[in-house]
Amino acid sequence: MNRFSLNHATTKHWNVLDAIDECARLGIGIGLWRDSVAEAGIATVAAAVRDAGVTVTSLCRGGFLTDRDGGIDDNRAAIEEAAQLGTRVLVMVCGGIGEGNDDIEQSRDVLAQRLRLLVPHAREHGVQLAIEPLHPMFASDRSVVSTLDQALDIAEPYTPADVGVVIDTYHVWWDPTVWSAINRAGRAGRIAAFQVADWVTPLPAGVLTGRGQLGDGCVPLRRFQRAVDAAGYRGPVEVELFNDEIWARPGPQVLDETLARYRAHVEITSA
Amino acid sequence: MNRFSLNHATTKHWNVLDAIDECARLGIGIGLWRDSVAEAGIATVAAAVRDAGVTVTSLCRGGFLTDRDGGIDDNRAAIEEAAQLGTRVLVMVCGGIGEGNDDIEQSRDVLAQRLRLLVPHAREHGVQLAIEPLHPMFASDRSVVSTLDQALDIAEPYTPADVGVVIDTYHVWWDPTVWSAINRAGRAGRIAAFQVADWVTPLPAGVLTGRGQLGDGCVPLRRFQRAVDAAGYRGPVEVELFNDEIWARPGPQVLDETLARYRAHVEITSA
Repeated sequence: MNRFSLNHATTKHWNVLDAIDECARLGIGIGLWRDSVAEAGIATVAAAVRDAGVTVTSLCRGGFLTDRDGGIDDNRAAIEEAAQLGTRVLVMVCGGIGEGNDDIEQSRDVLAQRLRLLVPHAREHGVQLAIEPLHPMFASDRSVVSTLDQALDIAEPYTPADVGVVIDTYHVWWDPTVWSAINRAGRAGRIAAFQVADWVTPLPAGVLTGRGQLGDGCVPLRRFQRAVDAAGYRGPVEVELFNDEIWARPGPQVLDETLARYRAHVEITSA
Repeated sequence: MNRFSLNHATTKHWNVLDAIDECARLGIGIGLWRDSVAEAGIATVAAAVRDAGVTVTSLCRGGFLTDRDGGIDDNRAAIEEAAQLGTRVLVMVCGGIGEGNDDIEQSRDVLAQRLRLLVPHAREHGVQLAIEPLHPMFASDRSVVSTLDQALDIAEPYTPADVGVVIDTYHVWWDPTVWSAINRAGRAGRIAAFQVADWVTPLPAGVLTGRGQLGDGCVPLRRFQRAVDAAGYRGPVEVELFNDEIWARPGPQVLDETLARYRAHVEITSA
């Protein structure tokens, strides 16, 4: 079984139904985003993946639980959409500090409280809330959860089937404690998803769209693959590249290149 | 005694000799940079601070020890310049991973080995090498030391008089372990310098010049001041703002504003 999965954000301007067809042809999975799913119609997309036999490896994203209104209704909808699309994994980007606030710890408390409200709904729908630590450069505006250990601390009160973590190399590669945290995540059975992207500089303005194609940067991708495997992870490897130059190119071409880079820089082959 | 110190990088286009005069008038210290000192002539600058009675609170910077050539000669020169300027504190920005490398741990080993080579020279000149952890967004190109605990681990083999750490709020505010690390730094007597800047978004391209004026962002500055004080730090508070908009304004005006912001958002007054 091919573990490679295309996170659709890598080819965000490629019609999602066409991307699903191509993933079916290649025998790979796809990670979906709520906005492009909504644009094509969720019933249509759900039917397309089912008919094509394509595995939806995750849905991005729930979260932003630190926002003023907590987004509880929207997160409940995201859980239902994940179930409808046939994926167990809802990626949670927890949210930043919020305008006018300077208390990151309070924001972390708020997110923990609001996560608690969502867990029963997730369980009911067979969906795992997968907390994604984001690089600390996003700590103020996207995620007050910056390290894998923090994500695991937040997940701790819940059963792994309900709350897991996402390990995205782009966000955690710099962390001197990441290797022990990966072991901890594996021991706890909480690795819900593994995503890969490389780190390149200079970062663009806004820092959101500067992820590097696999092999272009300084992330030891294969070491990460070995580490999550050694921690017991057997799931898909999603490639998620937010990158303006990659987005400007045709989806099929990007997918071909990304698959080749995955084989060269990530995949572990038993020789 | 006024603890405020102007890091000259905040007003980098202001002639350093004029800045020294103004700091003398205000009774505050100044943190200097090697490039602007060299431009004015180090003997001239050393005489100016001595004659004006201005405390040089730090010299920025040594480091980049992970570079191919290790920069040992240049770092020895930086130590001598710090001594000549009458400051004990040489801020060390340790350096990134380096082109074509994907092993951050190896880079950390290299920097530890090269730091060892510098310590005797620093001691001989009465200079403390002050390791500054930089925000993880600089981990690939400026500093493989991202957290205060890492910096303290690197400093551990040496006496505090030889190797200390810099706590810059801009770099460490996001870190969930920073408060315990500040206590650890204080207990070890290693807080060589305390620098303040605020965190604002969006970050500009290259992410170097996006530091916020005090009070404009989400960093709990006064909580940091209380924490370093509680950890036993009694030294200066340097304001170091890399910011294109601030740089475009006249130095004296920026200094006035920064002093006012310091009083409003950082300074602890015994009521």
